[in-house]
Amino acid sequence: MEKLYVIKIGGNIIDDEQKLSSFLKTFAVIEGKKVLIHGGGKLATKLAATLGVEQQMVEGRRITDAETLKIVTMVYAGYINKNIVAQLQANNCNTIGLCGADGNVIKAHKRPLKNGIDYGFVGDVDEVNINVLKSLIDQNIAVVLAPITHDESGQLLNTNADTIAQETAKALSRYYNVQLIYSFEKSGVLMNADDDNSVIASINPSSYQQLREKNIIFAGMIPKLDNAFAALQNGVEKVIIGKAEQLHSLITGSAGTSIVHE
Amino acid sequence: MEKLYVIKIGGNIIDDEQKLSSFLKTFAVIEGKKVLIHGGGKLATKLAATLGVEQQMVEGRRITDAETLKIVTMVYAGYINKNIVAQLQANNCNTIGLCGADGNVIKAHKRPLKNGIDYGFVGDVDEVNINVLKSLIDQNIAVVLAPITHDESGQLLNTNADTIAQETAKALSRYYNVQLIYSFEKSGVLMNADDDNSVIASINPSSYQQLREKNIIFAGMIPKLDNAFAALQNGVEKVIIGKAEQLHSLITGSAGTSIVHE
Repeated sequence: MEKLYVIKIGGNIIDDEQKLSSFLKTFAVIEGKKVLIHGGGKLATKLAATLGVEQQMVEGRRITDAETLKIVTMVYAGYINKNIVAQLQANNCNTIGLCGADGNVIKAHKRPLKNGIDYGFVGDVDEVNINVLKSLIDQNIAVVLAPITHDESGQLLNTNADTIAQETAKALSRYYNVQLIYSFEKSGVLMNADDDNSVIASINPSSYQQLREKNIIFAGMIPKLDNAFAALQNGVEKVIIGKAEQLHSLITGSAGTSIVHE
Repeated sequence: MEKLYVIKIGGNIIDDEQKLSSFLKTFAVIEGKKVLIHGGGKLATKLAATLGVEQQMVEGRRITDAETLKIVTMVYAGYINKNIVAQLQANNCNTIGLCGADGNVIKAHKRPLKNGIDYGFVGDVDEVNINVLKSLIDQNIAVVLAPITHDESGQLLNTNADTIAQETAKALSRYYNVQLIYSFEKSGVLMNADDDNSVIASINPSSYQQLREKNIIFAGMIPKLDNAFAALQNGVEKVIIGKAEQLHSLITGSAGTSIVHE
C-alpha cells in the first residue's frame, strides 16, 4: 500500500502567520499523498468578541450556539481553510479544502446531552466516507479538512479536529499505509514535562504501560495516547506526536514521539 | 456530449432563507451533471457594518480592501457555500463546495488600476482549470462555486459571480453540452421593462439587433446579453435568463428567455 500522511495542526500554528507559512512550505514538499486537518485558533474567539457573541465555556469546553456555529463556519471553513489552500497552491502543491459536508466526507450527529450539559451544535463523528477523498488523493491533490461536519439533514456541526484526524486516518488506512501526525506545542511525549529536550522517541503498548505506572505519562497525555493506540488498532501504521515547526523531522523520524505497535 | 447545467444564483435568493431552500430542493433533483455558482447577498455588507469595516463604493462597485476580503472570504466561501452544500446533501444531492483556489480551479489576477480607481483585492479571471472540476462532475458530484479566486501566489481575490459562471461554462463546453442559466430577480428579458409577464421567450443574434434598435433592450441588459452571446460564441449551447424561483421551468424551456444561436 502507498504511504499517506494525515497531519493535524493545532491553533498555535494557525494563529502565527510566520509559523503557518513556514509549516505550509514544508507540507507542500512532502513527497506523496497527504491530508491536512486544521484546528481553529483564536480567530473565532476574537471575532465572537468583536461581534458581541458571548462564548459560554463549560468545563473548559466551548458551547456552540447558533451564532457561534455561524462564526466557526466562517472562520474555519472559510477564512482559515481557503488561506491555507491559496498558500499551498502558491507552493505548487495542488490542494482542495473541504469541510465534512463536502462530498459527504464526514457524517456526524449533534452531541446529545452529557451530564445534563447541552454542547449545542457540536458534532460527534459517525463515519468518514472515503470515496471522494480517495478520488482526490489519487489525483495527488492534497486535501485540507476544516473541523466542521454535517448530519446529512442540513445541519453543520462544530467538530474536534483531533477526532477528525483520527477518524480520517482510520478510514483511509483500508487503502493506504497511513502515518498519523499530531502536531502540538511540545516536542513530543516528554520524560520530564518541564524539559522539552526529554522527548521519548518511541512508545509501544508495553512501554506505555510502564510509563503510566511510573507516572511519567499522566493527565492530558493519557487520552492523547489512548487515542493514538486506538488508531493503531484500527489500521493506522504509525502515530507521531511532535512540534509543527519540526514537521520534516517528524516525518523522517528524527524528531517527536512515535507511537508504534509492539 | 453529455448535458451539463451551469447555474448562477444571485444575492436576492441567497438572502431569502425560504427561497434558497426551495431553489436548492429543485436544484437537487435536476437530472444529470450540474454546477452552481452563488453570489454574495447582503450578509457580507451586514457583517462589515457590524464589524465597523467601512464599505467604500466607487461608481456602484465595492472596493475590496484587506478587511473586506477577509469578510467576503468568510461569508462567501465559508458560511454561504457550506450551508448550500449541507442543504444539498440533505436533499440527497452529493455536492462539493469550492472556491477558485481549490484545485486551482479559477486563476485570476488582481485588477489593475482602472481610470485611476484601485478596486483592491478584486480578481479578473485568467483561466478556468477544468481537470479537478471534470473529475468531480464525472463522479456525478454537483460542484458549488463561491466567487472567491486566487492568483497562484497565495492571494485570494473577490470575483464577480456572473463572470465566474460565464468562464466556467465556456471552459466546460469543451467536454459537455453546456446550458448556462443566469437567475436574477426578473422573469427574463422583458418586452416591457415594467411588465414581468412580457418575457421574450427566445433571442438570437438577429432578433437581438432588432430589439436593440427598437430600444426594447437597453441599459443594464446590454452587457448581460453581450456576455450571453459571447458565451455562445465560445462553445456554450444555450444561455437562459430568468427567475430562480422558476428553475425547473427555466430548464425545461417553459419560462425565462433563451439566448440561442441563429
